[in-house]
Amino acid sequence: MEIIHSIEDMLEKINQLKKSNKQIGFVPTMGFFHDGHTNLMEKAKKDNDIVVTSIFVNPLQFGPNEDYEQYPRDEEKDKLRAEEVGVDILFIPDAKDMYPNKRIIELSIKGRIDVLCGKSRPGHFEGVITVLTKLFHIVQPNKVYFGMKDAQQLAVVSALLNELNFPIELVGVPTIRERDGLAKSSRNVHLNNEEREEAAWLYKALLQGQQLVVDGELNPDIIVKEVSDTIINQTNGVIDYVEIFSYPKLQPITVIDQPVILALAVHFQHARLIDNLIFDKRGQLINHL
Amino acid sequence: MEIIHSIEDMLEKINQLKKSNKQIGFVPTMGFFHDGHTNLMEKAKKDNDIVVTSIFVNPLQFGPNEDYEQYPRDEEKDKLRAEEVGVDILFIPDAKDMYPNKRIIELSIKGRIDVLCGKSRPGHFEGVITVLTKLFHIVQPNKVYFGMKDAQQLAVVSALLNELNFPIELVGVPTIRERDGLAKSSRNVHLNNEEREEAAWLYKALLQGQQLVVDGELNPDIIVKEVSDTIINQTNGVIDYVEIFSYPKLQPITVIDQPVILALAVHFQHARLIDNLIFDKRGQLINHL
Repeated sequence: MEIIHSIEDMLEKINQLKKSNKQIGFVPTMGFFHDGHTNLMEKAKKDNDIVVTSIFVNPLQFGPNEDYEQYPRDEEKDKLRAEEVGVDILFIPDAKDMYPNKRIIELSIKGRIDVLCGKSRPGHFEGVITVLTKLFHIVQPNKVYFGMKDAQQLAVVSALLNELNFPIELVGVPTIRERDGLAKSSRNVHLNNEEREEAAWLYKALLQGQQLVVDGELNPDIIVKEVSDTIINQTNGVIDYVEIFSYPKLQPITVIDQPVILALAVHFQHARLIDNLIFDKRGQLINHL
Repeated sequence: MEIIHSIEDMLEKINQLKKSNKQIGFVPTMGFFHDGHTNLMEKAKKDNDIVVTSIFVNPLQFGPNEDYEQYPRDEEKDKLRAEEVGVDILFIPDAKDMYPNKRIIELSIKGRIDVLCGKSRPGHFEGVITVLTKLFHIVQPNKVYFGMKDAQQLAVVSALLNELNFPIELVGVPTIRERDGLAKSSRNVHLNNEEREEAAWLYKALLQGQQLVVDGELNPDIIVKEVSDTIINQTNGVIDYVEIFSYPKLQPITVIDQPVILALAVHFQHARLIDNLIFDKRGQLINHL
């Protein structure tokens, strides 16, 4: 595995790879890898000649009350895991190279962001699409990989790529789960034993909601109520939201007549967990974008 | 010469060219070609394997009081001239394909635009950088060509490419001129005979200003005064602006201690003409970016 820090070296390397017609798969990350990340890399490995993974904790996507400095980092462990998975190039640029001057070009997004987790993170997705635009120009991938666990991010990236005609295919990778269904997350370690058992109900509740649609229920309010009741009854978690929106536009709907996302966020004592299912109006899971 | 209208066909074509490692030069235009345009195409022809020219009258860069519908168009004549010059691919997308939906991703620019011609065209350069970002993603050129006559546009494109790490080289092509020095422009035909003769003084006045710097004058006010006086004394034109800014940042300066642009805009009866010179602190012309 090659580790590249400088943007210039990366451009040079990509230029070489392009000349020999290599298909490049790209997994942009903020590092501190867990199984969700390596799953994306493995998927990229299957689809492409070359897998590039970037590690960049992007200051631009942290709000004033969010802790950029405290974001967990473990570069040495990340290097080992990336190498194990077969990543070809690990790109770790410096913040001062990514943002060398006062910026005058700004990217903004006017939809898909004022709901779900984006609601409480103003400016977050502007930071995300700015850094991704830069990384996409440097790495010039054929395909990029994002987890469906962060479905809002996937919806935002989808708009970015489509509207600006990036010549890049977006691959949404299904959430990987523990044996009891809990979505894998680095936050799961902050659950105590009791919470950890209860947390499996988040996924079970989502499946119940989906089953209602399979059975013909098209009223989102009824589904949200059912999912919420299950979580309230089966866990000590505090619901942040349980919501249904059209997907990927993330607009409110009054009837399930199109692809939707059923998403939730639940606070436990030391961890806020998120999960979601995306399915069509017949309740069939959509496992790609 | 191949003429391509659909974005999808263009992506397919570029994909093929990339696979055979062709170097692509790109000249984005709004059509209605004059010598300034064909000069860019000729330059691109010399530097690259393949020249792509686009014709797209971009609705996004016209203000509410600017006439998008009345912008001059002559596609048939443009095709002949492009073919003559040796353009390989003429890309003429439809507005409804370039902007199919309500847009939610927006590009904006916070500097270099509130001076010179940009001052009176709010929103113009946002439209320019948005369409260029889209075109750059579709055409994926190695080099792009812009005339130095529109030096503000060049400065804006330079910021766009640098800040967002586009893997594209920007080539600024020196203004081509009539034998008496008047910058070539499709607007020159709107000058009457007397005005046409007077108009040569615009360039002469710029050269006078430059000569002052060569002679050691570093005070921009004195240079602006000299250039303005010449235009007032030698023409019946009405000055819109004569200004000096740092280049390419386009910031006000009190002393010429860095590369600068000396730019002017002058109204004649039926034509507003612009011109500029870019030179360093010793008055040496800068003919590239």
